[in-house]
Amino acid sequence: MAQTTRRPAPRYGNRPTMKDVAARAGVGLKTVSRVVNDEPGVTPDTERRVREAIAALGFRRNDSARVLRKGRTASVGLILEDLADPFYGPLSRAVEEVARAHGALLINGSSAEDPERERELALALCARRVDGLVVIPAGDDHRYLQPEIAAGMAAVFVDRPAGGIEADVVLSDSFGGAREGVRHLLAHGHRRVGFIGDMPRIHTAAERLRGYRAALAEAGITPDPEWVSLGVTDPQRVRDAAHAMLGGPEPVTAVFAGNNRVTVTVVRVLAERVRPVALVGFDDFELADLLDPGVTVVAQDAAQLGRTAAQRLFGRLDGAAHEAERFVLPTRLIPRGSGELPPAL
Amino acid sequence: MAQTTRRPAPRYGNRPTMKDVAARAGVGLKTVSRVVNDEPGVTPDTERRVREAIAALGFRRNDSARVLRKGRTASVGLILEDLADPFYGPLSRAVEEVARAHGALLINGSSAEDPERERELALALCARRVDGLVVIPAGDDHRYLQPEIAAGMAAVFVDRPAGGIEADVVLSDSFGGAREGVRHLLAHGHRRVGFIGDMPRIHTAAERLRGYRAALAEAGITPDPEWVSLGVTDPQRVRDAAHAMLGGPEPVTAVFAGNNRVTVTVVRVLAERVRPVALVGFDDFELADLLDPGVTVVAQDAAQLGRTAAQRLFGRLDGAAHEAERFVLPTRLIPRGSGELPPAL
Repeated sequence: MAQTTRRPAPRYGNRPTMKDVAARAGVGLKTVSRVVNDEPGVTPDTERRVREAIAALGFRRNDSARVLRKGRTASVGLILEDLADPFYGPLSRAVEEVARAHGALLINGSSAEDPERERELALALCARRVDGLVVIPAGDDHRYLQPEIAAGMAAVFVDRPAGGIEADVVLSDSFGGAREGVRHLLAHGHRRVGFIGDMPRIHTAAERLRGYRAALAEAGITPDPEWVSLGVTDPQRVRDAAHAMLGGPEPVTAVFAGNNRVTVTVVRVLAERVRPVALVGFDDFELADLLDPGVTVVAQDAAQLGRTAAQRLFGRLDGAAHEAERFVLPTRLIPRGSGELPPAL
Repeated sequence: MAQTTRRPAPRYGNRPTMKDVAARAGVGLKTVSRVVNDEPGVTPDTERRVREAIAALGFRRNDSARVLRKGRTASVGLILEDLADPFYGPLSRAVEEVARAHGALLINGSSAEDPERERELALALCARRVDGLVVIPAGDDHRYLQPEIAAGMAAVFVDRPAGGIEADVVLSDSFGGAREGVRHLLAHGHRRVGFIGDMPRIHTAAERLRGYRAALAEAGITPDPEWVSLGVTDPQRVRDAAHAMLGGPEPVTAVFAGNNRVTVTVVRVLAERVRPVALVGFDDFELADLLDPGVTVVAQDAAQLGRTAAQRLFGRLDGAAHEAERFVLPTRLIPRGSGELPPAL
């Protein structure tokens, strides 16, 4: 569908306008505006003529007109990965707050971690005339957005980088954060540390695995293949992975959990076991501090990710012409008890 | 903006079509299709003619076309109240799953509990050609949707009823659930039970307060005005309310929390106190069972609310013409420890 958007602006120039309605009805623009906005001062006969013209032309008032800015439709889209992952709540809300401050509506959709779905949704939002997109990508090829960007749409990627195109991206320091979390476990005496992460094709999962390996390598430790488990984050898969690395003759004494979905399941598994196992999780989560022990996490600032991405997006929409940039936000280790447990056995 | 949608179908009949492009370029429809879809079998000269026609007419391929059903644009909208409230995660995902099963995309937006924002967003989604809307209403006047509904859009309300129009609504039994939760506290010997809830203009908040009052009335208890605190659910307001009813010469010995946002803050307040206080919360939440004590809740099935609403929506879109109906889903009391504590003092 690339080629259909390469034509010059205006992009929606041949939708019928109020002017067309006025011409067809043989009235002035102000009269059409009065009818459309239910304002007084139009005779019944004129109103009828205007309505007939509206019907004949298929004119449909753009009700975003009130918030139109510089000819734009004043809405931006956000493509999430999973509507039910609490990590995206504060991120979405931050994007929405920035959008609102710019007089724009935010429209969301979820890719459900399916690259084809992401593409379909992104293009559907483009077709619905969003001015810009904040994308948490599921796929790694975003060339399909190139024509939209060339036609003036802004796009900023967040949480994971774009693939195949030059675009702004706002990331947390997944590598550095994971390395710090694993270093923390090593500093508390652990030598056998497990890693349970998301699917390795996901950028953040791969980066966190790299951080885990780096921390072990620094300490001169070569991880057993059985210490590492990557895959979907559904509870049963994570549960099986945890049991596998916690069983056997040489179990891990500590686990690094690759994201909040993994961490909450590992917390459940550990609560069922007698022998204490240390745990550090990537992502903070609600009530982590009230569990016993409190869960030590490598926190990323989801709201700041969303805010940074949205501000960049509106900076571009306001006319700032920048080179594509990569913003990397720091993470923060929060010790709460679970990551400070010494090795058992 | 009512009047512009009252004209007969097709609603978007005069956007340029592939047929228009074919006619202008003097080629067959299949040739245009090949160019638009980047398929082989078109000479460079023909391709150039087609592209010129596309540019001249402002043709923009409707990329939802692949999932078009019965002439609809195959997308539905969901208007949430708060993107960061975890209650809406499973609800949104369930709506999305039903939409996907019907070959439709889901587009979300958040009203942030602002009726004007809800209206603006709903109409913006209508203007972007959603076939139907699932609305968690912030406001209590939805007459602004009447023209859209008259023009064939389907609307189903969920969690809270519509105001001023006849529309389907899917609710949890807030009254019955709250009454059962408070009865549970009374059955464990409490006589002074506090209620901390959301703003009383919100339907669910009002219904839960009514359930609280009903349970006390059955037990012959007239609540002190100081036992009831209604307002926004931000942590500081809830914290102050909890401290107020837990202080003083005759403190409450149990608290009923009106929703998950209230409950998590009350859990924090109680964790800081020495004297045990019983707690039952409306809404289940992640890790509630792993806290100490586990938090007794009145659970509603957020996913089932979303699924029921979405199925109803697609039932209407598939042509089923029903009277507007009200569906009330049952709640479920889950005892976990906090609600079974006896009165202290």
